[in-house]
Amino acid sequence: MSKMQQQSFAQAIGHFANGTDTPRDFLERCISVIEAREKDVKAFTSLQLDAARKAADASTKRWHKGAPLSYIDGMPIGVKDVIETADMPTQMGSALYEGWAPGYDSASVHALREAGAIILGKTVTTEFAATRPGPTCNPHDLTRTPGGSSSGSAAGVGCGMIAAGLGTQVVGSILRPASYCGVYGFKPSLGGINRGGSHDYMSQSVQGVLAASLADCWQVAIEIVQRAGGDPGHSGMIGPPLPPEADMPTTLAFLKTPGWDIATESARKAMDMIRAQLEAAGIRVIDAHSDADVATLEALLPESLSLTRRINAWESRWPLNTYVDKDESKLSKGMVERLHEAQAMHVEDYRSALLRREDIRAAFASLSSKVEACITLSAPDVAPIGLESTGNPIFAVQGSLLGVPTISLPLITLGHLPLGIQLLGFLDEDAALFAHTTALETILTPIALD
Amino acid sequence: MSKMQQQSFAQAIGHFANGTDTPRDFLERCISVIEAREKDVKAFTSLQLDAARKAADASTKRWHKGAPLSYIDGMPIGVKDVIETADMPTQMGSALYEGWAPGYDSASVHALREAGAIILGKTVTTEFAATRPGPTCNPHDLTRTPGGSSSGSAAGVGCGMIAAGLGTQVVGSILRPASYCGVYGFKPSLGGINRGGSHDYMSQSVQGVLAASLADCWQVAIEIVQRAGGDPGHSGMIGPPLPPEADMPTTLAFLKTPGWDIATESARKAMDMIRAQLEAAGIRVIDAHSDADVATLEALLPESLSLTRRINAWESRWPLNTYVDKDESKLSKGMVERLHEAQAMHVEDYRSALLRREDIRAAFASLSSKVEACITLSAPDVAPIGLESTGNPIFAVQGSLLGVPTISLPLITLGHLPLGIQLLGFLDEDAALFAHTTALETILTPIALD
Repeated sequence: MSKMQQQSFAQAIGHFANGTDTPRDFLERCISVIEAREKDVKAFTSLQLDAARKAADASTKRWHKGAPLSYIDGMPIGVKDVIETADMPTQMGSALYEGWAPGYDSASVHALREAGAIILGKTVTTEFAATRPGPTCNPHDLTRTPGGSSSGSAAGVGCGMIAAGLGTQVVGSILRPASYCGVYGFKPSLGGINRGGSHDYMSQSVQGVLAASLADCWQVAIEIVQRAGGDPGHSGMIGPPLPPEADMPTTLAFLKTPGWDIATESARKAMDMIRAQLEAAGIRVIDAHSDADVATLEALLPESLSLTRRINAWESRWPLNTYVDKDESKLSKGMVERLHEAQAMHVEDYRSALLRREDIRAAFASLSSKVEACITLSAPDVAPIGLESTGNPIFAVQGSLLGVPTISLPLITLGHLPLGIQLLGFLDEDAALFAHTTALETILTPIALD
Repeated sequence: MSKMQQQSFAQAIGHFANGTDTPRDFLERCISVIEAREKDVKAFTSLQLDAARKAADASTKRWHKGAPLSYIDGMPIGVKDVIETADMPTQMGSALYEGWAPGYDSASVHALREAGAIILGKTVTTEFAATRPGPTCNPHDLTRTPGGSSSGSAAGVGCGMIAAGLGTQVVGSILRPASYCGVYGFKPSLGGINRGGSHDYMSQSVQGVLAASLADCWQVAIEIVQRAGGDPGHSGMIGPPLPPEADMPTTLAFLKTPGWDIATESARKAMDMIRAQLEAAGIRVIDAHSDADVATLEALLPESLSLTRRINAWESRWPLNTYVDKDESKLSKGMVERLHEAQAMHVEDYRSALLRREDIRAAFASLSSKVEACITLSAPDVAPIGLESTGNPIFAVQGSLLGVPTISLPLITLGHLPLGIQLLGFLDEDAALFAHTTALETILTPIALD
């Protein structure tokens, strides 16, 4: 894979200050990639090139005057098409919302505009951020899926069309496409970013960021939180106004999770090499063999995917029931099946699922006295061939169920294709996870296997 | 005031079974009141009389066959116009949403339809369920406010146009209009009823019920919860499928709250008479003079309104900012001022407010070891004259801040106008509050003063 094309805004802003680069030039580099590759990659549902150029010129003037609105002033961003925008339709990957234009910005999009960021376009999502794929292809290999549901945001960042993309995750919708497209993916703690104005209402849903660098992930998230907060009633993601300083962890838990059994031999070998690098650097790595608490957690994790699907089914009863009333023919078969599953549930079944989720969350939280973070793969393999499925969320779903912050780092290449490693932090400790991950990036060498 | 016109569905269904009354006849009684009084009361923004009659006939057939869909099958309900409906516009009391027709039902409305209830119309709300009044008049005296923000639901129930109305409360929007219009008002615990598809996103917001009897309040709420649950991640209101059986409390806390100082002499006298009735029935009533924990709580409660307004301001930053982008001239001055207040806040200010709210909630929760419920007025007086204000929320706001279930009982008449007494329960103990309130209704005699 080529990381050369990716556009890190955090690296560019140093040059804005001295005039050797400008937000307009940055944008033009993005647009030139779009012109070259969008016809094949199909990352966008809408694009606003003229408005973006105007906004980039205004940003260029602000940087020139030494008065940018924020550290992301001028950053070209793609917005997953379940998140509302005043100037573009929000179509949710669904024929039910074809051409739907609410006329208002989501809380996060409004905050990004206040910070001077450029909303370059809307990016392809699976149907309602769930299962049925959109048309997007993986920029590293057009015969493969980019992952989902934040497909367009990941693909767009992966080939340098945008510096960052907003995504949402309820199962594996940020971490998995980040892994497949070779970008950084950040899923914050539950409630950390205000979800107002987004089709993103489930109890495990969060908005997050896909970007070309770890620093960009933090910066986009914190600039939103400073202006829009977290979900109502939540403190919002807490942390410094610039990326947290590196803080080398002393102990990590290596989790296999149920994904390990289906991970390919190459993926497991690469992950073992990462572990060896960590240990060579003096970091203690515990696992289910060496630690009883990790073993307890690992024994619970196989439930993550089925429990998540059960919780999501109940929480989708509405609005799927009113969608079916409106026009069932415009929903995928999978969505109608999910509704039937939900309709067969009683509210008591849902309550049981919530209690079970609490048990698993408690088992994870208890590790915080022993380790600074957990580490595992982001996906069982590189992006699979074909566009009919967005791949297996088996490694990403634990973070969703747990509600904790997770980051995918693009550190592995198998053949010509990327694969991510995943760091999981503790609830509302997003800044600590960034500090540890930033430190780990300085000691981990990218791994390339055939 | 005349309670004669009000229509309790719970009392009617006994007659549906034996054929001496029918849902169609019940509906026609509602419609006859609408025909007589709606031109003056102005409770509705939309009405669906033909569809309602068709639905009532279908319900009549189900009751005739002994197979109603639920205990509210055939119940005529008004829906506050911030809650979406597939068949009527949702206009939020705002020119920005004039004619807006989303085309889908909210979670609660869909659940009501599944239960066979008849969505008779949309009821007037203040602008975005906040401050600027709609045109609704108090049915007991057209020169007076019905209260707000659930103005139309309260007025409609108050004169028998509907058996129940859906409302929402974030400050005093259910309890206050219930008190002014002489109806039962029920604000559930936070998260108890699914808010999906409602402009009702703040951290103190809940959906609740205004109805002609306590039993109707419970039944509407529990039928929704059984089909739509609570908010995502919440168990939903827990309790039996029919109203909880009466359970006489042994000890109540009498709260004055900051409202007592501005309550009229008549209101205070009536409340003291209620207290005397309770004590005469053998119930122990503690207060700030006799109990240190009540005194601690009372010392904190004066902050409730200012803290609530601060929290609501931050949580309204979005969407008010995107509304102002769209067309500031369509917002009230008060809404624009709220946005300015929010824009002057930093996310840290909001976090401080949330922590303070937690302290007050903890002080209230600690009373649960001493008393089964708290009791106070629902408002400082009867509905004030004039339609330019919906009255003072000073007695209702504590329940909103605390997030606990509250009920207003129409037990007082001052002159010809109603005033409610308020029971406050403990978080997620909605069923216990109903059980105690049901018992109290059997021993409390309505009070009429000049």
